[in-house]
Amino acid sequence: MLRFEEHHAVRQTVRQWRSEGQTVGLVPTMGFLHQGHLSLIDWARAHCDRVVVSIFVNPTQFSPGEDLATYPVDIERDVSLLVQANVDLLYIPDTQEMYRPGHSTWVVEENVGTGLCGADRPGHFRGVATVVCKLFHRVEPDLAVFGEKDWQQLAVLRRMVRDLDFAIQIVGRPIVREEDGLALSSRNAYLTPEQRDQAPALFAGLQVMRQALQMEGSESAGIKQEALRFWKRHLPLGQVEYLEIVDPESLQPLKTIHGPALAAVAMRLGRARLIDNLRLME
Amino acid sequence: MLRFEEHHAVRQTVRQWRSEGQTVGLVPTMGFLHQGHLSLIDWARAHCDRVVVSIFVNPTQFSPGEDLATYPVDIERDVSLLVQANVDLLYIPDTQEMYRPGHSTWVVEENVGTGLCGADRPGHFRGVATVVCKLFHRVEPDLAVFGEKDWQQLAVLRRMVRDLDFAIQIVGRPIVREEDGLALSSRNAYLTPEQRDQAPALFAGLQVMRQALQMEGSESAGIKQEALRFWKRHLPLGQVEYLEIVDPESLQPLKTIHGPALAAVAMRLGRARLIDNLRLME
Repeated sequence: MLRFEEHHAVRQTVRQWRSEGQTVGLVPTMGFLHQGHLSLIDWARAHCDRVVVSIFVNPTQFSPGEDLATYPVDIERDVSLLVQANVDLLYIPDTQEMYRPGHSTWVVEENVGTGLCGADRPGHFRGVATVVCKLFHRVEPDLAVFGEKDWQQLAVLRRMVRDLDFAIQIVGRPIVREEDGLALSSRNAYLTPEQRDQAPALFAGLQVMRQALQMEGSESAGIKQEALRFWKRHLPLGQVEYLEIVDPESLQPLKTIHGPALAAVAMRLGRARLIDNLRLME
Repeated sequence: MLRFEEHHAVRQTVRQWRSEGQTVGLVPTMGFLHQGHLSLIDWARAHCDRVVVSIFVNPTQFSPGEDLATYPVDIERDVSLLVQANVDLLYIPDTQEMYRPGHSTWVVEENVGTGLCGADRPGHFRGVATVVCKLFHRVEPDLAVFGEKDWQQLAVLRRMVRDLDFAIQIVGRPIVREEDGLALSSRNAYLTPEQRDQAPALFAGLQVMRQALQMEGSESAGIKQEALRFWKRHLPLGQVEYLEIVDPESLQPLKTIHGPALAAVAMRLGRARLIDNLRLME
């Protein structure tokens, strides 16, 4: 596996591959890899000639007071997983080199990124869109793979690619869960044993919403109440930051459900802020 | 000369050229071409194997109440000039195809683009940076050439390229002037004969500032007064929108001049808003 910290070396290597007619897939990560990341890498491995993984804990997508300083890191373990996964190139940019003094240009998405996590975390998606734009320019892949756990992030990046005409395809892949239903996340490492015991109820509550839709009708307010009641009973340590039923493309909240609908939740559980989502109707 | 309205055709052609080892220069314009544009094209012609010119009157860089609806257009004349200039490819994108319904992603530069024209024309540089980002992604040139008359635009685009890691070089080229000193601009077409007679005093006032710096000292306030007095006498039809002496890189105003300094002015003259600039000290 090649390993670079300098972006010209990455771009040169990728350009060489592409000039030989090979396709290149990029999987951008913040490291501390788990099976969710590996499922993205496996997809890229199966669909592209070359697979590039980046590890960068992007400071500009963290708000003040968030967990930037304590975000979990284990590069040696990551490297060994990436070698096993048969990745061709690992790109670990340096923060100083990523954001130079006087950095003043941002990619801002003003529609699908404003609600949900965008409302709770001001500047978060501006940081995400900007760093992904930079990674796209530095790596120049044919496609990039992201997880559907960060559904809104995926929507923002799809919109960015469409609006700014990137010649790069965005691929979204399903959430990978523990056997008990908890969506994999690097931040699950923050959970105490007691919190971890309750955490699977987050996804169970979303499944309750799907049942409620089938049994009790199409009013979003009532369906959300079912989940909130469920979490009160089974996830008393958690604090809901938001729970919304939205159009899966526009991310606009739906008052009633008659077509495609997605339930999206963010919950504070101890030190962790967990997010999850579930399609309620196709 | 090739002529495309569809961006995939442009990208495919440029990729073909570049895969053959040819270098490609882009000259983005809003059409109604004059010798200023042609000097950019000539530079690209002399330094690149292939020259692409785009013509697009970008609606998102006009503020409400500005001259978007009346911006001068003469495509037939432009085409004949471009053929004479030996341009390889003319790209005329369609507005509907450039900004799709629900467009919501913008490139925003928050430092060098905030003063001067950025203060007078809110959203102007957001529109410029966004459309140039899109053109860069659609055309994928090695370099792009812009005129120094729009000095602040050049600074914003250089910052954008640096901050977002575009693999594209920005080339700035000197202002082209009429014999009487008036900087060439498509908007000069708006001037009545009487306004046109006074217009050369705009540049003459900037030259007065350079003389004042040499004769009378380094205080910006006094030097600006000299120009304002000069314009009161020789350009009474004009209304100054701003006059600043700035650092040519950061565009921050300078109170005193001891190193690189640029005088930049915007003036309303009848229907036209004219801008000009002059280096006062290297």
